[in-house]
Amino acid sequence: MNDPKANTFAVPFHKLAGRANNRGRVYGTDTLMVHTFLHAIGNPSLRIVLWDGKILPAPGANSTAGMVIHDRSTLWRLMTNPLLHFGDEYSAGRIEIEGGLVQFMETVYRSMEKSPKFRRISDPEAYRRHQPGLNSLTGSRRNIHHHYDIGNEFYQLWLDAEMLYTCAYFPEPDDSLDVAQIAKMDLICRKLRLQPGQTVVEAGCGWGALARYMAKQYGVKVRAYNISHEQINYARQRARDEGLEGQVEYVEDDYRNITGSYDAFVSVGMLEHVGPDHYHELGTIIDRSLTGQGVGLIHTIGQNYAKPMSPWFLKRMFPGSYPPTLKEMMAIFEPWAFTVLDIENLRLHYVKTCEHWLERFEQNLNKVREMFDEVFIRAWRLYLSGCVANFRVGSLQLFQVVFSRPSNNQIPWNRAHLMAPVGKS
Amino acid sequence: MNDPKANTFAVPFHKLAGRANNRGRVYGTDTLMVHTFLHAIGNPSLRIVLWDGKILPAPGANSTAGMVIHDRSTLWRLMTNPLLHFGDEYSAGRIEIEGGLVQFMETVYRSMEKSPKFRRISDPEAYRRHQPGLNSLTGSRRNIHHHYDIGNEFYQLWLDAEMLYTCAYFPEPDDSLDVAQIAKMDLICRKLRLQPGQTVVEAGCGWGALARYMAKQYGVKVRAYNISHEQINYARQRARDEGLEGQVEYVEDDYRNITGSYDAFVSVGMLEHVGPDHYHELGTIIDRSLTGQGVGLIHTIGQNYAKPMSPWFLKRMFPGSYPPTLKEMMAIFEPWAFTVLDIENLRLHYVKTCEHWLERFEQNLNKVREMFDEVFIRAWRLYLSGCVANFRVGSLQLFQVVFSRPSNNQIPWNRAHLMAPVGKS
Repeated sequence: MNDPKANTFAVPFHKLAGRANNRGRVYGTDTLMVHTFLHAIGNPSLRIVLWDGKILPAPGANSTAGMVIHDRSTLWRLMTNPLLHFGDEYSAGRIEIEGGLVQFMETVYRSMEKSPKFRRISDPEAYRRHQPGLNSLTGSRRNIHHHYDIGNEFYQLWLDAEMLYTCAYFPEPDDSLDVAQIAKMDLICRKLRLQPGQTVVEAGCGWGALARYMAKQYGVKVRAYNISHEQINYARQRARDEGLEGQVEYVEDDYRNITGSYDAFVSVGMLEHVGPDHYHELGTIIDRSLTGQGVGLIHTIGQNYAKPMSPWFLKRMFPGSYPPTLKEMMAIFEPWAFTVLDIENLRLHYVKTCEHWLERFEQNLNKVREMFDEVFIRAWRLYLSGCVANFRVGSLQLFQVVFSRPSNNQIPWNRAHLMAPVGKS
Repeated sequence: MNDPKANTFAVPFHKLAGRANNRGRVYGTDTLMVHTFLHAIGNPSLRIVLWDGKILPAPGANSTAGMVIHDRSTLWRLMTNPLLHFGDEYSAGRIEIEGGLVQFMETVYRSMEKSPKFRRISDPEAYRRHQPGLNSLTGSRRNIHHHYDIGNEFYQLWLDAEMLYTCAYFPEPDDSLDVAQIAKMDLICRKLRLQPGQTVVEAGCGWGALARYMAKQYGVKVRAYNISHEQINYARQRARDEGLEGQVEYVEDDYRNITGSYDAFVSVGMLEHVGPDHYHELGTIIDRSLTGQGVGLIHTIGQNYAKPMSPWFLKRMFPGSYPPTLKEMMAIFEPWAFTVLDIENLRLHYVKTCEHWLERFEQNLNKVREMFDEVFIRAWRLYLSGCVANFRVGSLQLFQVVFSRPSNNQIPWNRAHLMAPVGKS
């Protein structure tokens, strides 16, 4: 027990650093800091290259994934709060990744998923971790503004032509993103079994593509809500350009202020911003909005068990966000006895979608550079790469949940209606 | 406040009966007892005919559904514990139903679902109501024996040719029960994406039809568990008759004693007998039984929100049973981070299945009568009619849940494999 090296891998750094420093072994301190960092992220099999060229393979490291750390203060920050500082240090250019950023993130996420340190036991407070009480009416407005109001021109560089910022549905894996986003909208319309003349309310409509598609292809009237000012402006302009003003109404307001009664309720990629504290409230809104024979669909990122998003993701990318488990989602439905009719998990489609986004983002780097600085670019590269990795590893899921009222016997007999060719109602 | 009649509908009988009796108004007492009974079941719109011919329509009653109560002591029992005694008094022939038993049960269930008295708030202790701690190894054996070991000849009278006692899947609503039960087995095989040479474990195999079907039609090896002695004997004989001994092994043992590793885990109609107290344990079994790329399917009756089964149903029909909510089911999957891939709700198919069972039961009454007495027949008529009504009203659901391990990327790209014609792999 007198040899600090014997404890290198087993004991966190803060218990050893003093002794190591007393011996004046600076190199030993770096090693300990590296191992403390790796320990904190589940001991992934990574190659770590220090500023002086020293290479510190983790025990049993045989991965091609590796990282170059530019200075000791960066390593120190990685050690003290790895999940926050990795993102910031990478964005600032003080960390470089070898062997591909996506592969690196996959290696890390896989080790975190497997590590007993990150136990697969649902944390009932997961959605509160790393963030104070959020998603009130004003909190939501601030959180949504943070991510979605940074400029439509930026999103136009790497999203599809219709500007959908949610998981696409690829009829064939090699289909284009444009095809897949249209197929996704059509799949949703078929799941809702939309009929001409029906009314639909959409909670969180992004740039408004789904509302326009439903109106154009299925002949329904849509009222679509969103609190992102930039998105609503864009959506309204597109509706005017396409002559859909009489059929689609975009409302710049919170989902909690939805009024009226509708044949269908649909929400795509909004639940991630609602937060489990507000699921009961969302259920109230749905209950008062849906007719007796109405059908609802919620499309959301989800998780297999409750765990918090990383503090970096919450701080820099999506404040107030949380992808629920199916268990948590039931708080929306149970109090009104809504019947879950169908749940589909489109995780692999989100891998593909994020791969497209990342590729298009990189292809348009020169144009992004005219809008934002290098720190922004690196942060977004990390975010998009992390999304690919998260869905590939299975730490995130994509659920489409279809529901109706319990006494509704006009529900589909089977799934044949879901299999219609894209674009046909 | 001095006129007891003013309180007739608002105050439960036990608070008024004394005063009514003191006035010697026997007819008033009967009225109060009827209204107390109706109040306890959510004030359904029913016609009540008493032994002396008096007709007591409930307030606003306009239903053709009604009941004839043969004597005052029966009415008394209905009032004191309606959910238990209705079943027993009907079985004993002291109650007759007018306008059809299924319609009567539907009227009652609808009123219970709508009544604020039966609030749609999930009861976290629902599965414990009306039953003590059950479903231990010995408790399960006793509970299963109670229902399933009353004679294969009886079940042969009204089940399909393959003896499936779970929800069928009707490709077309007018298909026969035989066709629909085969279609159900095929749907399950496609959901599991069975390939020749794979291994399957089945937890709770009934009379063994699914295990035989999987082996014959999909070329897999199946080990199937069941604790019903009569069912296992029947299943083994059928497997011998069909030359499947090398491919299907029936094990007379509890699901908790499953050993080995399998490409697929399947359980059809067993979860209702497991009980939420044992879902974590079931998850442990699945986790240790399923290969890395394995797929699992659980087919179970479920509910939109947690409420107890009726005490009569628990006492006379299925002791220890409980149909879970989706939220409750997640306790099977979350601790092992299993990924839910697909959930389908086949409620309307269970309406149809139960209608077939009830019809066949009635058609074979003469043969049933050779085996059992009139009390048994009436109890089973009530049970099967109640099932039709429960699924029609939506107080029960039928969930098929498909799941895999989180890191399994060999999951289906879409649902095309589910749409293959019946009998094709």
